[in-house]
Amino acid sequence: MSADVVGLLRDALGDRVDTSAEALDAARADKSGHAAPERPLAVVHAESVADVQRVLRIASATSTPVVTRGAGTGLAGGANAGGGEIALSVRRMNRILEVRPDDLLAVVEPGILNAELNDALALQGLWWAPDPASRAISTVGGNIATGAGGLLCAKYGVVRDAVLGLDIVLADGRLLTLGHRSVKGVTGLDLTSLVIGSEGILGVVVAATLKLRRLVEGEVVTIAATFPDVRTAAAASAAVTASGAQPAIMELMDAACLAAVHALLGLDAPAPGVAQLTLQTDGPAAAMEASRISEVLGAAGGTVRVAADREEGERLLTIRRSMHPAMETLGTALIEDVSVPRSALPAMFDEIARIEREFGIVIPTVAHAGDGNLHPNFVFDGPEVPDHIWAAADALFHAALDLGGTLTGEHGIGVLKRRWLADELGADQWELQRQVARAFDPAGILNPGKVFETAAR
Amino acid sequence: MSADVVGLLRDALGDRVDTSAEALDAARADKSGHAAPERPLAVVHAESVADVQRVLRIASATSTPVVTRGAGTGLAGGANAGGGEIALSVRRMNRILEVRPDDLLAVVEPGILNAELNDALALQGLWWAPDPASRAISTVGGNIATGAGGLLCAKYGVVRDAVLGLDIVLADGRLLTLGHRSVKGVTGLDLTSLVIGSEGILGVVVAATLKLRRLVEGEVVTIAATFPDVRTAAAASAAVTASGAQPAIMELMDAACLAAVHALLGLDAPAPGVAQLTLQTDGPAAAMEASRISEVLGAAGGTVRVAADREEGERLLTIRRSMHPAMETLGTALIEDVSVPRSALPAMFDEIARIEREFGIVIPTVAHAGDGNLHPNFVFDGPEVPDHIWAAADALFHAALDLGGTLTGEHGIGVLKRRWLADELGADQWELQRQVARAFDPAGILNPGKVFETAAR
Repeated sequence: MSADVVGLLRDALGDRVDTSAEALDAARADKSGHAAPERPLAVVHAESVADVQRVLRIASATSTPVVTRGAGTGLAGGANAGGGEIALSVRRMNRILEVRPDDLLAVVEPGILNAELNDALALQGLWWAPDPASRAISTVGGNIATGAGGLLCAKYGVVRDAVLGLDIVLADGRLLTLGHRSVKGVTGLDLTSLVIGSEGILGVVVAATLKLRRLVEGEVVTIAATFPDVRTAAAASAAVTASGAQPAIMELMDAACLAAVHALLGLDAPAPGVAQLTLQTDGPAAAMEASRISEVLGAAGGTVRVAADREEGERLLTIRRSMHPAMETLGTALIEDVSVPRSALPAMFDEIARIEREFGIVIPTVAHAGDGNLHPNFVFDGPEVPDHIWAAADALFHAALDLGGTLTGEHGIGVLKRRWLADELGADQWELQRQVARAFDPAGILNPGKVFETAAR
Repeated sequence: MSADVVGLLRDALGDRVDTSAEALDAARADKSGHAAPERPLAVVHAESVADVQRVLRIASATSTPVVTRGAGTGLAGGANAGGGEIALSVRRMNRILEVRPDDLLAVVEPGILNAELNDALALQGLWWAPDPASRAISTVGGNIATGAGGLLCAKYGVVRDAVLGLDIVLADGRLLTLGHRSVKGVTGLDLTSLVIGSEGILGVVVAATLKLRRLVEGEVVTIAATFPDVRTAAAASAAVTASGAQPAIMELMDAACLAAVHALLGLDAPAPGVAQLTLQTDGPAAAMEASRISEVLGAAGGTVRVAADREEGERLLTIRRSMHPAMETLGTALIEDVSVPRSALPAMFDEIARIEREFGIVIPTVAHAGDGNLHPNFVFDGPEVPDHIWAAADALFHAALDLGGTLTGEHGIGVLKRRWLADELGADQWELQRQVARAFDPAGILNPGKVFETAAR
């Protein structure tokens, strides 16, 4: 049967079907550290909508699961392809089909990298706002599939706010055009929003109509503030939000993060326990806002430094951007992604401290403090997440839920969080979501076992 | 059977069940002019989530259709209840349950009026941005059910951008909590967005967690510009968008609108053919932006007047706000709601002129020019839309679709546009949307015959 599927794919798609060991192994994994236990049947490098349709028709006819992939930078295992599955890569579908500065929209294929798109848009003074930390290496299609966030979300929104329409191929190979080219549109059910963040279980996104912004005029002002402990820093970030100021970026690093980054960059070690907030303001009122924010931070106990110029600002932000490489120097990192209402940020840091004590581990944590999204890092040795780390993660998830938060702010459920999904949704909503997915994919061949835990297949 | 249903409702809900002729007739109609041909069985004035659940359990047990209503200000017949149906009013569920300035969120019941909510929020310096022209008389629940827009959308977004979570009661009476209290959240499928704009066919919204903004600081500057004809005015509005300026409001009125409003308000008649743009800028750079915009408008052929103060600005905007009363002086008005990409606005006005010529009618048109949303008014005598008006509307819808637009920017499909829905969605997506709705409401008792045209029941 498996040989038949590969044969059918080769007949239809020729050398775009890749069964090299290297390709198959790459398709098993993403950046989460998780990998499917077995290799998929084949990797198909689709180059057109017709290619995607061919793959799905063969998959439907043979009841073969299909896992759609972009650049493989996911952090929840959502695009990892395993035994008996076809890995459908749309990475080669990376064209910009249309840019309309007058309508502030662009139509792109899913495989283009976020940063590549934005480099091209910048030439026309335009910008697609979603900016996941992975933007240099992650695709627009992947950003859409996960409903990605990033650093600028509190001010400029998430992916869901920046997509007007999607072309998708259904499990049976039919092509649908969802959404609008107009800013407003309420024709029937909003399937575009439903597909955003659906992690490959509803259809394969083959084109996206994106809502653009004009590049923000004016200066950018960067502020760094250090605090004696992380709770004080978290309270200060909440005070900034409560003050009515709207920084473009407001990032928090706890002491463990700060120490690891300083060591990586060869900087002097910070005083023990010190946490840092890094903020940027932008737009015509950037300087005025920066000055107001500095006052709030100072009143909240911070030692505040406003960057003298853009270069110094970049240096200050580099400390935040070096977070992931710094974690890698410590061991294998499971990057978590809980999100809480902004006012609950200090309480969430209390919970993290409690879990650190209970489990005898250190959980270096960075937060998009402007929107309450935390990335606690569980660091361990070896490739497999040990049981006691999962137990600590379980405590973390429930702490976030108890504070009115969510399991995942921007990384998605994938494989790694599916066993907690019903804890957040409740059994009734979990089952309803499954029924909605079945309306798109009655045979269940699209990314089965992702998002929703299934019985062994 | 019908008597049984009313009896069951009375047993469960007492005097909250209203079968007075006045209530039943009111529930048949909305502000579109359309009314269901027969009276519903009863109007239930729900006062709590439990009331809504009681109604839906009885409806499910007896296979009785339920039409949920707020203030009845819809413009597509979506909340009109007819023969054999229960009208479920949530208008009395109008409490503000929670306001969190620190988290920029509020939790409200669906029956609160948009303007009432915003009056209360303003006391805390907060604001829920969606601002349909009906905001003084329409409910938040109705705004959510239609995915409402308004005047400020191009800058501040539509309802979909301003809702974090929803509590809904399903057809069988179960209560679900959808979405998040955190700004970010990608747990499973985004059912919150799916319910927004779903016009009562998926569930009954009984609470909404709204994403708030802080009131915009700084001044508001109002600009009015007149143009020799509507096409020049439309091109000027496109030039403003293309310039990178972002007015908070940019409203266009054609000559027929302007003449009717001037007559209503007792102002001197404008020169024949003259069309007007009314704009507002806000925020810290309002004056600078107003000056840039004035230059663009002048270069595009406009005679520009910048209001000297807020009072004069209000007078200029009153002309726009008097549009609907002015139409009512002309006859019965069918207010249409097509939306096109902003660059297509001049072409859409060409199409309207063509349709006026072909059908020998005048179509007074106002447009939210900042986002490409037009409200062409078909005016006629008597309560029923004549066939030649529907034929002209049909031509209008197809012209909008051909320009890359949509049937409805912000009013919804309801009853009045359901026969065109498949023209826009295509048969495959139309059927998929129906299947998705069935996942929520397998028996099809929620607002049947709305959005999707059904066989006679």
